[in-house]
Amino acid sequence: MANANMNCWPLIVIGGSSERSQETMGAFQEFPQVEACRLYSKFSARPSSIETIPSIIEKAVRSSIYGRPGACYVDIPADFVNLQVNVNSVRYMECCTPPPVSMAETSAICMAATVIRNAKKPLLIIGKGAAYAHAEEGIRKLVERCKLPFLPTPMGKGVIPDNHPNCVAAARSRALQFADVIVLFGARLNWILHFGLPPRYQPDVKFIQVDICAEELGNNVKPAVTLLGDINAVTKQLLEQFDKTPWQYPPESSWWKTLREKMKSNEAASKELASQKSLPMNYYTVFYHVQEQLPRDCFVVSEGANTMDIGRTVLQNYLPRHRLDAGTFGTMGVGLGFAIAAAILAKARNTGQRVICVEGDSAFGFSGMEVETICRYNLPIILLVVNNNGIYQGFDVDSWQEMLKFGDATAVAPPVCLLPNSHYEQVMTAFGGKGYFVQTPEELQKSLRESLADTTAPSLINIMIEPQATRKAQDFHWLTRSKI
Amino acid sequence: MANANMNCWPLIVIGGSSERSQETMGAFQEFPQVEACRLYSKFSARPSSIETIPSIIEKAVRSSIYGRPGACYVDIPADFVNLQVNVNSVRYMECCTPPPVSMAETSAICMAATVIRNAKKPLLIIGKGAAYAHAEEGIRKLVERCKLPFLPTPMGKGVIPDNHPNCVAAARSRALQFADVIVLFGARLNWILHFGLPPRYQPDVKFIQVDICAEELGNNVKPAVTLLGDINAVTKQLLEQFDKTPWQYPPESSWWKTLREKMKSNEAASKELASQKSLPMNYYTVFYHVQEQLPRDCFVVSEGANTMDIGRTVLQNYLPRHRLDAGTFGTMGVGLGFAIAAAILAKARNTGQRVICVEGDSAFGFSGMEVETICRYNLPIILLVVNNNGIYQGFDVDSWQEMLKFGDATAVAPPVCLLPNSHYEQVMTAFGGKGYFVQTPEELQKSLRESLADTTAPSLINIMIEPQATRKAQDFHWLTRSKI
Amino acid sequence: MANANMNCWPLIVIGGSSERSQETMGAFQEFPQVEACRLYSKFSARPSSIETIPSIIEKAVRSSIYGRPGACYVDIPADFVNLQVNVNSVRYMECCTPPPVSMAETSAICMAATVIRNAKKPLLIIGKGAAYAHAEEGIRKLVERCKLPFLPTPMGKGVIPDNHPNCVAAARSRALQFADVIVLFGARLNWILHFGLPPRYQPDVKFIQVDICAEELGNNVKPAVTLLGDINAVTKQLLEQFDKTPWQYPPESSWWKTLREKMKSNEAASKELASQKSLPMNYYTVFYHVQEQLPRDCFVVSEGANTMDIGRTVLQNYLPRHRLDAGTFGTMGVGLGFAIAAAILAKARNTGQRVICVEGDSAFGFSGMEVETICRYNLPIILLVVNNNGIYQGFDVDSWQEMLKFGDATAVAPPVCLLPNSHYEQVMTAFGGKGYFVQTPEELQKSLRESLADTTAPSLINIMIEPQATRKAQDFHWLTRSKI
Amino acid sequence: MANANMNCWPLIVIGGSSERSQETMGAFQEFPQVEACRLYSKFSARPSSIETIPSIIEKAVRSSIYGRPGACYVDIPADFVNLQVNVNSVRYMECCTPPPVSMAETSAICMAATVIRNAKKPLLIIGKGAAYAHAEEGIRKLVERCKLPFLPTPMGKGVIPDNHPNCVAAARSRALQFADVIVLFGARLNWILHFGLPPRYQPDVKFIQVDICAEELGNNVKPAVTLLGDINAVTKQLLEQFDKTPWQYPPESSWWKTLREKMKSNEAASKELASQKSLPMNYYTVFYHVQEQLPRDCFVVSEGANTMDIGRTVLQNYLPRHRLDAGTFGTMGVGLGFAIAAAILAKARNTGQRVICVEGDSAFGFSGMEVETICRYNLPIILLVVNNNGIYQGFDVDSWQEMLKFGDATAVAPPVCLLPNSHYEQVMTAFGGKGYFVQTPEELQKSLRESLADTTAPSLINIMIEPQATRKAQDFHWLTRSKI
Repeated sequence: MANANMNCWPLIVIGGSSERSQETMGAFQEFPQVEACRLYSKFSARPSSIETIPSIIEKAVRSSIYGRPGACYVDIPADFVNLQVNVNSVRYMECCTPPPVSMAETSAICMAATVIRNAKKPLLIIGKGAAYAHAEEGIRKLVERCKLPFLPTPMGKGVIPDNHPNCVAAARSRALQFADVIVLFGARLNWILHFGLPPRYQPDVKFIQVDICAEELGNNVKPAVTLLGDINAVTKQLLEQFDKTPWQYPPESSWWKTLREKMKSNEAASKELASQKSLPMNYYTVFYHVQEQLPRDCFVVSEGANTMDIGRTVLQNYLPRHRLDAGTFGTMGVGLGFAIAAAILAKARNTGQRVICVEGDSAFGFSGMEVETICRYNLPIILLVVNNNGIYQGFDVDSWQEMLKFGDATAVAPPVCLLPNSHYEQVMTAFGGKGYFVQTPEELQKSLRESLADTTAPSLINIMIEPQATRKAQDFHWLTRSKI
Repeated sequence: MANANMNCWPLIVIGGSSERSQETMGAFQEFPQVEACRLYSKFSARPSSIETIPSIIEKAVRSSIYGRPGACYVDIPADFVNLQVNVNSVRYMECCTPPPVSMAETSAICMAATVIRNAKKPLLIIGKGAAYAHAEEGIRKLVERCKLPFLPTPMGKGVIPDNHPNCVAAARSRALQFADVIVLFGARLNWILHFGLPPRYQPDVKFIQVDICAEELGNNVKPAVTLLGDINAVTKQLLEQFDKTPWQYPPESSWWKTLREKMKSNEAASKELASQKSLPMNYYTVFYHVQEQLPRDCFVVSEGANTMDIGRTVLQNYLPRHRLDAGTFGTMGVGLGFAIAAAILAKARNTGQRVICVEGDSAFGFSGMEVETICRYNLPIILLVVNNNGIYQGFDVDSWQEMLKFGDATAVAPPVCLLPNSHYEQVMTAFGGKGYFVQTPEELQKSLRESLADTTAPSLINIMIEPQATRKAQDFHWLTRSKI
Repeated sequence: MANANMNCWPLIVIGGSSERSQETMGAFQEFPQVEACRLYSKFSARPSSIETIPSIIEKAVRSSIYGRPGACYVDIPADFVNLQVNVNSVRYMECCTPPPVSMAETSAICMAATVIRNAKKPLLIIGKGAAYAHAEEGIRKLVERCKLPFLPTPMGKGVIPDNHPNCVAAARSRALQFADVIVLFGARLNWILHFGLPPRYQPDVKFIQVDICAEELGNNVKPAVTLLGDINAVTKQLLEQFDKTPWQYPPESSWWKTLREKMKSNEAASKELASQKSLPMNYYTVFYHVQEQLPRDCFVVSEGANTMDIGRTVLQNYLPRHRLDAGTFGTMGVGLGFAIAAAILAKARNTGQRVICVEGDSAFGFSGMEVETICRYNLPIILLVVNNNGIYQGFDVDSWQEMLKFGDATAVAPPVCLLPNSHYEQVMTAFGGKGYFVQTPEELQKSLRESLADTTAPSLINIMIEPQATRKAQDFHWLTRSKI
Repeated sequence: MANANMNCWPLIVIGGSSERSQETMGAFQEFPQVEACRLYSKFSARPSSIETIPSIIEKAVRSSIYGRPGACYVDIPADFVNLQVNVNSVRYMECCTPPPVSMAETSAICMAATVIRNAKKPLLIIGKGAAYAHAEEGIRKLVERCKLPFLPTPMGKGVIPDNHPNCVAAARSRALQFADVIVLFGARLNWILHFGLPPRYQPDVKFIQVDICAEELGNNVKPAVTLLGDINAVTKQLLEQFDKTPWQYPPESSWWKTLREKMKSNEAASKELASQKSLPMNYYTVFYHVQEQLPRDCFVVSEGANTMDIGRTVLQNYLPRHRLDAGTFGTMGVGLGFAIAAAILAKARNTGQRVICVEGDSAFGFSGMEVETICRYNLPIILLVVNNNGIYQGFDVDSWQEMLKFGDATAVAPPVCLLPNSHYEQVMTAFGGKGYFVQTPEELQKSLRESLADTTAPSLINIMIEPQATRKAQDFHWLTRSKI
């Protein structure tokens, strides 16, 4: 139902429910589903007659893409499936127009431009709201024209390519901690951005919030300027200001110097880890080799704990809306579904794009059976399972296996561990896809090369890594535990 | 907590709930109140500690006034009342800034102006969203500059004075039915506007929707143009268009002629009814006399069925946000609470404004005891109870009273009737206010004069009318029953 | 729909909602009402067609009276009102049979009897569950056969007459605090019974819980014996045990002595307060005179704070299910509705019973307008408004009134006060009922006498009392604030 | 926390939620989880402090097993994990006593016995409520003493062994359709029992309902007798009646004759299907061979469509509470979790029992990855995947595969199909379990033999069957579509 040239894709779940005449009788799967979906949806409804289906679907589609996007639920009673109505009694609705666009008020734009011009240590943060708004061109121009450092959020990656010289992702903590002016493009000050509060930020940092949702503005901090509107439109308004009175942040400022130094040292540390020759491999070695072969236009899907977190720092995105991960809720199990959706889109658009799905072994366990779907439709997906035997935190596998020989497994196996040396690649071959079990950088390189070369079948590369492998030392823990 | 120079007034309900330590034990008034309020609130929360109260109140206030305004609920556990905390552990929050303002995109504004310029039978509808947005100045300029006919919704009355020559409220049905272009300023196409659908509208009428809420746009109709943004800001954008290229709708068009004729005939019919000398009085006679003495700057509060509906057509509003009625939900019982709120505001601002609260007798029964509050605080409120003995539809009171003498009242009294000749004015005098029982136009005039002259006490005028009195013939029933 | 010889009265709320075809369109009073009622109802549903109305009403009635009784909600779409269906397509349902009765298992009954026989300081608590179960005959026999002291909960009053010699209500706190075995007949260990925990109870008190609801058993305490079943049936099972092996608790035990002494001293203190001659009267004086004239078979309805709490200790109930008060939730505003329901029942049964509705002045303010309904149907209700000028806690009325003369009432009036000297009786006379304003015991006696003599009209007696009047000193505050 | 000698196992879900101090701030996985679980739980709560955890867990456990059993939810804020409290401030609660037992009233028992004695065509239906109540001994005695035919519901199978001569499961439809008296032991008249209505039942059939839940009684039908209480206790009450006045239903009645004839013909049809030699095998052949080797004491877990439905008719249960299937909701994906739970119980009890998990291939896809857990803990589970290539209804696989070669798979593959010839056994071998791919009866027999012999490793047998294979002709469709 979505308009062909629409940028937004509505997210509608159509559910089936019991026959109307059997309600309250204990019908098959009778449940107040519309009510149960209320907390999860922007709009949740059940047509009371076939005649009203078109208008309710139209409203669901529209509610899903107008304003801040979100999921909607429509419940169809089972008896509708075989019911017939007079076609004239149906109230048809055309598909809605693309979402209406709003802009920030001019005075707020001026104020924002002034605050930016006066910044000593400016920083742009690009969130997934910017990606949804298709604001990539405007934001890139703003970054380049004003020579500003920027940082993407996990799903904001690719709005500007990760390898852009102004991207300071490699100095993330430093950038957040010392910036004096931060412009948020569709990025919420939730746990992912540590609520915008000290000690992760300066107590007097000035936030400029650009968002489509009025109620988001002012969450957790008192912003210096709020720019309510479509992020793309607002970015263009800001650009106009800097067109009228050009300005650029001095590239040789001590702030840029600080950031570049930190990036350099962080990147060196990553490279050092990536170049370690010991086996099993560590995360950085794995992602270094993946990154080397990653097609520029591929979709990167990812879920897991360390796998997702470290992978995000190494794997580059060059295109907006080409990264999908576990998101704000950290929901495990979404990866394969996301990969399938992306692959079907790529097939439908006939772009030849590949989907790389980077899974922790534990994450893969949530919905790994979806490889059947991937194989059934021969989708262009390469699954990487980064396999540390499910060890979330340091744990001695050998002694555990020793113990297993002598006693009750249930008594001693910690719930955060998985079975050692699982052959996840065989879950793929079971359904006719290609499977690789790799233990060395060379095997990894070879399997990636083969997988990318073969456009006729999906593949899964099961990559064994050091169970104790963790990430390099952090200034702050990712999930801040500091007092707020 | 609301900022002194804020236009919006947050609506926060603070509830008390049971002590935290007694939860699940059957504590006094233990109930999932936050959950129960979810369907009724934009934000509903319970602080988990005293320390978080300020930030949750701030969020409630902000959520209430940012975006489309709405009520919020905050639940305070009983044990907080006597609990002490270290003042340094509390995270204080300043009050939020006034709501952010957004504008429509320029291309949509241009398109809207073009559609208006090309209209054969244009109509503006001014909703309560326009009143909330304080858009009165801009909309009045637009009406006058372009010489356009306009129509207010019930709570949109007064954004432009009702006696403005371009107001076509007296030809409401006609205006809706034949307009070819309708601009909605903060007015929803819900049941009050008959969903924007035939037969109450032309099938091909072009709607231009101006609204602060994206998800409202496109409800029930496919609009020709959508202007998403703050209604005041968007109105100014439209005005700029008509400043750049002035245009006005020809005052001698056949559309204006049609509307003026219909208004004239409707107003004549009303006047005819108002001038009837028979007793008991009818609605029109009553409201005619009330209107004659109504201070221009008073607040008009109203609830009831015919009382509210007919009263709205006769009683004029000259100021925006000075009419409060039962609203979209038709909720009976809100009148006295609204009147008290308006009166406290008037007292706080020291404007000397009066509040006229026009109640149907049935509506008064919902919360009439609030006269105690009115008297306790000596609020400048004049209550009019338009008393038709609670008869909603034609019903023979005499024969009912006859029946009462011979049998069980419960068996024969229809539930839509109230006790005949109730002396509601004594409910007021019971608490020290002034009370009047009026049966003739002269008594009505006199009691109004006295009530308005006396600034020291509230009063209630119990106005007896003909139980069979209804309204003048309508082209359509107000609550459309026509097929949609 | 309730069966004529049913003991239980179903509580079904039938709501009206918007037309089905207008759902999601912004229909008049469109709202997810079934969902909104879920937290408040045992069963909440909306028929999807006229054909299913009978079976859904039957299920609502049945759910309301089977198991632990509770309210149910049925929502009827507006378009059903004028819709016609083929009568043969409707699935009619006969009314359900009276609620099924279950009994406790025999071994638990034996164990309970043994625990009772071994009690040193036994106590029975009679809750409203016993009243609902019509267990009065059995419980009275048990009390008398075993010579046990008993205590009613607020709405358990009257299951055995309050003036029964074994009733130790006048030594409530003492009885709870020192009992070693407590048998609960349909009484929950919620806040009203102080959760069954120290310091209000002995730490090792043995509870025997008799309840119709399995999930209620074990709440807050670990009971010595649980007797799950219909309370009437279980009581008979217990009686059989004491029939087989008769036993009685020694009437001259030190426990009985302790209780009787405490009752005597408490009753003396009450009498002392009741006999005070100073004016205005205090609560005890008022209730003493009311109690003197209270017909034995009347319904007593009550709500308020001190009015309800003190009134409960003085006003006697002699019949089960003849006391209705604000209940577990302490919901204010229910009094007049309860009184009307009781009066209609009395009229329908033609018993000549009167309804005495004892209201605090603040409580009366919640729904005082219902006197219109009372007068319209000429219901045999005598309303007593115990008027302390709305003073909940000690507060100096004179100085407040002084202040009122000099400044802004809103600034100084505490929200817990009402207007002094309100003439609530005029709210009654406004609708044709009898009204009395009484300030002395003699006026009170006279007005009561007249009201009771006059069977043709309802009346309201506005009883002025000392605003500072409170209750006699308590061992514990009613709403326990002690740590639990 | 469950008592060692408890029959019931509480079902408590403990969820983790965000830190209390970050509520409303956008914390990690912040969500109103207690509220979201309300519709799915008997009790849903979040402790407000560590001190209240024990009492809330106790209440959750108790609520889960008292009355009709059900799931409960307890939500633990993340900050509790590392919080410390003074151990003395914690209110510890002992585990609750086993569920209280109630019985039916004696008069209802007598009436039920009379109705049974007068039955012309009696039938007992044994539901999962009877299994939960551990009523097996009593019900078997009743069946044998009175020589009554009985029918188990899906999870009531095994309360009496399926091979009991009085089991008329093979004549299910006939038995339901013509019985004149039906005794329901813990079986609901929901969709699984076709609501108890014609045409699946006689219009005047007399139902005797035995249930622990009062509100269940009278659902959809007006029962002749209702017996409210613990099913085990009520069964014993019935037995006492037939002990006092022995009675047995004549084994040579025409009803028994009718049932035996129908059973014979149905069993012959099944046997005929089971003995077909053509390959691929059909369902009956598969289940015939499985049944031959099934250990008597094994747990049978099953989910799927035809796999579950046909499997249920062939695979025999000999022990109560040893069958777990998709249940009333037909929830797919529960199978492996059920199997793991049963296997852990068997291991904990050290009974040497095996778990046979019979999965449709589509059903296996929902949670097949749980084989990792099965292998990690080496659980004694044998998984059977009955593989018809996911074909739910007749569908031509060959022509589909032909089409796949020429075009877009997404365009032509019906959503109800899975990939042909999936090697599900490799999903098992990937994790170290045994895997078998079987296409013939001989291979099936051999793999079963090996799997049962090997007590050291779990196994999965992937059984290829004829994609078009369906069940034998039915008198009625399982999911009745007939008008009700």
